[in-house]
Amino acid sequence: MSEFTHFNDQGRAKMVDITEKKETSRAATAQSSILVNEEIYLNITNHKMRKGDVLAVAQVAGIMAAKQTSTIIPMCHPLPLSGIDLSFEWKKRQNGYELSIQAAVKTKGNTGVEMEALTAASVCALTIYDMCKAVDKGMVIGATFLKEKTGGKNGDYHRTAIPSTEL
Amino acid sequence: MSEFTHFNDQGRAKMVDITEKKETSRAATAQSSILVNEEIYLNITNHKMRKGDVLAVAQVAGIMAAKQTSTIIPMCHPLPLSGIDLSFEWKKRQNGYELSIQAAVKTKGNTGVEMEALTAASVCALTIYDMCKAVDKGMVIGATFLKEKTGGKNGDYHRTAIPSTEL
Amino acid sequence: MSEFTHFNDQGRAKMVDITEKKETSRAATAQSSILVNEEIYLNITNHKMRKGDVLAVAQVAGIMAAKQTSTIIPMCHPLPLSGIDLSFEWKKRQNGYELSIQAAVKTKGNTGVEMEALTAASVCALTIYDMCKAVDKGMVIGATFLKEKTGGKNGDYHRTAIPSTEL
Amino acid sequence: MSEFTHFNDQGRAKMVDITEKKETSRAATAQSSILVNEEIYLNITNHKMRKGDVLAVAQVAGIMAAKQTSTIIPMCHPLPLSGIDLSFEWKKRQNGYELSIQAAVKTKGNTGVEMEALTAASVCALTIYDMCKAVDKGMVIGATFLKEKTGGKNGDYHRTAIPSTEL
Amino acid sequence: MSEFTHFNDQGRAKMVDITEKKETSRAATAQSSILVNEEIYLNITNHKMRKGDVLAVAQVAGIMAAKQTSTIIPMCHPLPLSGIDLSFEWKKRQNGYELSIQAAVKTKGNTGVEMEALTAASVCALTIYDMCKAVDKGMVIGATFLKEKTGGKNGDYHRTAIPSTEL
Amino acid sequence: MSEFTHFNDQGRAKMVDITEKKETSRAATAQSSILVNEEIYLNITNHKMRKGDVLAVAQVAGIMAAKQTSTIIPMCHPLPLSGIDLSFEWKKRQNGYELSIQAAVKTKGNTGVEMEALTAASVCALTIYDMCKAVDKGMVIGATFLKEKTGGKNGDYHRTAIPSTEL
Repeated sequence: MSEFTHFNDQGRAKMVDITEKKETSRAATAQSSILVNEEIYLNITNHKMRKGDVLAVAQVAGIMAAKQTSTIIPMCHPLPLSGIDLSFEWKKRQNGYELSIQAAVKTKGNTGVEMEALTAASVCALTIYDMCKAVDKGMVIGATFLKEKTGGKNGDYHRTAIPSTEL
Repeated sequence: MSEFTHFNDQGRAKMVDITEKKETSRAATAQSSILVNEEIYLNITNHKMRKGDVLAVAQVAGIMAAKQTSTIIPMCHPLPLSGIDLSFEWKKRQNGYELSIQAAVKTKGNTGVEMEALTAASVCALTIYDMCKAVDKGMVIGATFLKEKTGGKNGDYHRTAIPSTEL
Repeated sequence: MSEFTHFNDQGRAKMVDITEKKETSRAATAQSSILVNEEIYLNITNHKMRKGDVLAVAQVAGIMAAKQTSTIIPMCHPLPLSGIDLSFEWKKRQNGYELSIQAAVKTKGNTGVEMEALTAASVCALTIYDMCKAVDKGMVIGATFLKEKTGGKNGDYHRTAIPSTEL
Repeated sequence: MSEFTHFNDQGRAKMVDITEKKETSRAATAQSSILVNEEIYLNITNHKMRKGDVLAVAQVAGIMAAKQTSTIIPMCHPLPLSGIDLSFEWKKRQNGYELSIQAAVKTKGNTGVEMEALTAASVCALTIYDMCKAVDKGMVIGATFLKEKTGGKNGDYHRTAIPSTEL
Repeated sequence: MSEFTHFNDQGRAKMVDITEKKETSRAATAQSSILVNEEIYLNITNHKMRKGDVLAVAQVAGIMAAKQTSTIIPMCHPLPLSGIDLSFEWKKRQNGYELSIQAAVKTKGNTGVEMEALTAASVCALTIYDMCKAVDKGMVIGATFLKEKTGGKNGDYHRTAIPSTEL
Repeated sequence: MSEFTHFNDQGRAKMVDITEKKETSRAATAQSSILVNEEIYLNITNHKMRKGDVLAVAQVAGIMAAKQTSTIIPMCHPLPLSGIDLSFEWKKRQNGYELSIQAAVKTKGNTGVEMEALTAASVCALTIYDMCKAVDKGMVIGATFLKEKTGGKNGDYHRTAIPSTEL
């Protein structure tokens, strides 16, 4: 059985040594979502016409969180991110409206940016929760997962089976 | 229709004024989860016998993230958290092993700690993803939601319908 | 001549002891501005119709910076901010378009929030510079100053002579 | 008309992709100032003889803020700064004493350091305000602008018309 | 045998619940030191006459670190520090010059500030090491310990046997 | 006599310009320790059998602090750390049990990682103090020093005389 790489000779956690890994262009895309009720859906989408809508704030939060990933996730390497982009898509569900959040992150570095993309998507969803919770605390953040990554010697990753985000 | 509270007269986002809200004891519990394959499950649970297991690191990450909530979530008020506790539970699922993560946060403050509990649970799940992703990038972070909150003038909240976390 | 309060017996900087100061409601409003050319002015104001305009991002930046004031300004006390609100106003100037930025901050604490308001206004202006600098690096951030403060034993402050922000 | 670069296909803010930009030596110099009354001027300049003067603290604050620029300014790329230097100059003005602050920042990176220089100069001025505000809250932070930048494919920038900082 | 308080029912680390502890005035003083050679000693003490000496920078670092204690030390509660003061004393030792560093921290809060004082003293010593290491990397940071604490229901603490800091 | 490098023409602190230094693999190892009484020693070592022991938390703290070094130590350059590993060793001393802490840090960068290693070791020791202080506040953090560094044009450093950490 393969062994975890994050442990040292004493069996304790370490930040894995990537000094000898090659600096290449790397990219990763992660997805999360949040399921909201109709009232919140209408509020958010009506706000689209306004200057500082909920999604604008959530997007800034996701971008800033991506840059903080190595201070939030203990064993994550600091990386000079070279691009971060979040996008949104609404889907009508049986029990509400689901906002799908996609976060794409890039770097030229020694290791991948999967965690940065996942962190951006998660924090974006959390921020939406925060700004709408006065209306309904029943919102649910859906499945959060890696969609694909490219670059690096271990080859690319493309998720084939997208987890149902229908709660 | 109720209006969002996070917007000022110019229609822009603001941090809501809570100066006049009363300082009371408040608590919130949030839940997240991560679905992993059998290899990771065995690796994590075998590590339990070791000194610095995956869950120990993830738990520290969740606790530290809870304290950073107001710097991660843009419109969140800074609060002097007075207690943070994360716990874990494994469940065998059809397509893998699900680790349920529960985060309980307390404060004596002017507003609730829902976001702190949700952030702790999310970051805990993200950290587990980080430490196990060398084995399998297909892990999925499951539904993340508020279980209950107490304290504050708006009354308590107890979620009745727990979202299915079976992906 | 009055003496600075930020120095200890050895003549070195210290964070002033406010343990005995009373916790009261305090507020402060600061103002900054940025002078931009017509192209940027049109770009920003046209973006108003879009979902994530420049000012929405700058406002989030100002709010988040206010919460970080005590980690940015060395001798500043950490304070649990209870409200932050930024607003904008455009003025046609002889040599361009001036965006006036006003930041209002509140707390219930042992010392004032002047620095939090000034930091919010400054960072808001810096963020606008950042997002528009690809068009013109000649923008100038104008006078930044305290407009008023209330609360605390030293009495209120209301600036009478507003500095000309005409550059 | 040129378009802003900070927006994605959905019209929302993004951190611009600089993955393909070349890593070169880059430098930028920004300027800010603060206008103080005679009492503060004498206090600061007399402190020069002491061990921990106001300007020493403000300079440390400016240097530390430059390193935090990408966490303060939402769309700013993280860059490994390779040098930061702040210097001061006093000028007698009609209505007080103006301390001119110059911040020079260097990097070997994929994008420029204008924002780092501007942030260093601004935070330096804010820190001086903080340490002297017990004497007079009427201080005014003057025009803050980019003086020059070098390096990068878009060519150098040298401001010709220095904004009057006389308030 | 007494049990550690930082562990939950699952045997995992938690941030201890202090919601019910009383808010009182609390203070703590910690001490650290650094042993340097004569060349560094002369350099530092000659710099005393200059505007931005080594100790001024180290002191700012200690004060800022004290305010960051709860983000640096995982199980530490966030506290609104109300006063921080560091002072220095040189002692001639057999094998060099020892700079003794004393950090005094105050709060009005629900738990003590021992960690804040210890962190301030440690970071102050580390900063001196950083600024002098180009001259000699052989400097040694000496014993770091709590000298006294007051406030809180567990009574005061006054260390009687000061550890020899003679290395 | 050699001069400090951290000062500019005005005699003020600056972050030294390393733009022209070569990017090479660099490593540093630092050591600290903490002396605890028998009760704490037994508590910690018994916890080894548990899931989230004191040393696991302290190790995460040390790793995360290493990544924050340039935000904690004012004149320290930001560096993309490529590996961090902490290890522990117990020694019975005349007046207690000493836990020796060793921190090894690596980077591929323009300057050394001595401060990152020293910061990791210090914060690790401080965290142990924090988690055990409810049992005894008399613990003493012992000598903290650089053991060796490699890489960079100034040659390697290997400490020959290890300071006695016997307090």
